[in-house]
Amino acid sequence: MLRIADLGERGAPLDRVGTVAIIGVGLIGGSVGLALRERGLADEVIGIGRDEAKLSEAVRLGAIDSVSTDAARGVARADVVVVCTPVTRIALDVRQAASQAPENVLVTDAGSTKQGIVEEVERDERARQTFVAAHPIAGSERHGVAHGRADLFEGRACVLTPTSHTPPDRLGRARGFWAGLGCRMIEMEAAAHDEALALTSHLPHAVAAALAASVPPEVLALTAGAYRDITRVAGADATVWTAIFRANRGPILQALATFQSRLAAFQDALSDDDEQALHQWWEAARAQRREYEALQARPRHL
Amino acid sequence: MLRIADLGERGAPLDRVGTVAIIGVGLIGGSVGLALRERGLADEVIGIGRDEAKLSEAVRLGAIDSVSTDAARGVARADVVVVCTPVTRIALDVRQAASQAPENVLVTDAGSTKQGIVEEVERDERARQTFVAAHPIAGSERHGVAHGRADLFEGRACVLTPTSHTPPDRLGRARGFWAGLGCRMIEMEAAAHDEALALTSHLPHAVAAALAASVPPEVLALTAGAYRDITRVAGADATVWTAIFRANRGPILQALATFQSRLAAFQDALSDDDEQALHQWWEAARAQRREYEALQARPRHL
Repeated sequence: MLRIADLGERGAPLDRVGTVAIIGVGLIGGSVGLALRERGLADEVIGIGRDEAKLSEAVRLGAIDSVSTDAARGVARADVVVVCTPVTRIALDVRQAASQAPENVLVTDAGSTKQGIVEEVERDERARQTFVAAHPIAGSERHGVAHGRADLFEGRACVLTPTSHTPPDRLGRARGFWAGLGCRMIEMEAAAHDEALALTSHLPHAVAAALAASVPPEVLALTAGAYRDITRVAGADATVWTAIFRANRGPILQALATFQSRLAAFQDALSDDDEQALHQWWEAARAQRREYEALQARPRHL
Repeated sequence: MLRIADLGERGAPLDRVGTVAIIGVGLIGGSVGLALRERGLADEVIGIGRDEAKLSEAVRLGAIDSVSTDAARGVARADVVVVCTPVTRIALDVRQAASQAPENVLVTDAGSTKQGIVEEVERDERARQTFVAAHPIAGSERHGVAHGRADLFEGRACVLTPTSHTPPDRLGRARGFWAGLGCRMIEMEAAAHDEALALTSHLPHAVAAALAASVPPEVLALTAGAYRDITRVAGADATVWTAIFRANRGPILQALATFQSRLAAFQDALSDDDEQALHQWWEAARAQRREYEALQARPRHL
């Protein structure tokens, strides 16, 4: 069973955070910048990336104050570095930033998978002493800074996955940083995070895409709300999702097997025209959905 | 391949429709009443059902003018009877209404499956001469007249599935009736309708429920938009959906097989850690979703 510690815990209130460098200014990185600037939390927000046009757009949209296409120079005076690149790049970017930033830097990330990143980062001693792995569970099927929002993280869960090597002061600062953007803070082990997210996010994305691929164009005029909502996230970026799937293969394959067995139970009941089995199958699913709705309706500790 | 005739065709504008009897005043029946009354299309809207409390609620909410728990009396002076009961009851209700209503009555329905209903209705000569099978593709995971809306049908597709026995005058009146509520009219064969809806609605509902049943309560705090939107319709009524699944078993089992093969392709690519296959699999799904979005963005002939 998965255990979630500290649900709803909030870090110490963050007064100001100094200089923040954001590596990768897309939907997530851009929203971090917008939130920092709207809330007046940072002295300066520096955007780091390879694409100057995208960085200029981020400045124009108010997500960052200044830009750098040179990571070493970009992080040279950062108090906090937030790595918002695709999951396959995060560990490398974290290690580079840790080696180039000031001694006292906090490096954190926003990746959708955690165990592989944590393992790779912790092989580097300097990176291990500055890094707190984070996953703010917020996003969109859209990508790019133009879809960023200052309120993207408000009320959303942010999971931190510290290890025995994570310095307590960095953990405290990471709590404060993400809580400062509006997140509800959760702490758990990286492996537990990846198992949970396989079920709560990665499996749903795979299911959405499988459904989108199953409904041929000639019947799209006969879709309604169910199709519209279920396939929404199938519009997300292929490179981002290929990377997430590959970074969390084991847990996703396990989640997929669970889903397939639920679907097989439906198939069996329908093949047998078993009214009672179909009714019970649906009611069991409905009860789980109701539990989710009850959770959403519960007041949050914000 | 499925063929859809007359996409976007609209019936002759409906001036007024006289007296309308609605059998089954839940979400759909209630919305028919609300739309008729808001648009001033009917002289009188009579609600017919077995539960007096629900009928009183429908009057109070403005969905119907008067009520009857006696179907024979309720349809005795109806110009149009709209049968909005669960799919397993529709054929029986249509046949009874046809035998009890005036000679010139139009009987139509709002069932989510069509072939079984049409076959059963057409075994009765009187019913065959008055009935036009319809499916306004609109609904909600909620049920009950309290969730009805006068605009539920606006811009939504409504499929008519006439046969060679359907009198042309009744077909014309059915087009006018549903178009009068705001629907885009589509005509196709009942079997083609059921095949299409298995893919566009029934499969998505089964997938939503299978996913809801796969995500255990202890990780619900780590869900985000994908889970929320995909499982929404799993909150729908078990009896309604058990009836729809059973009424459309063959096409749904076929749609399910298609979906399972798409998912198996994902499983294979992930097991093999095949980056290119995963990327292509996602892109193919994304292209279909984009096609849907383009269709939604296209101006409608309303």
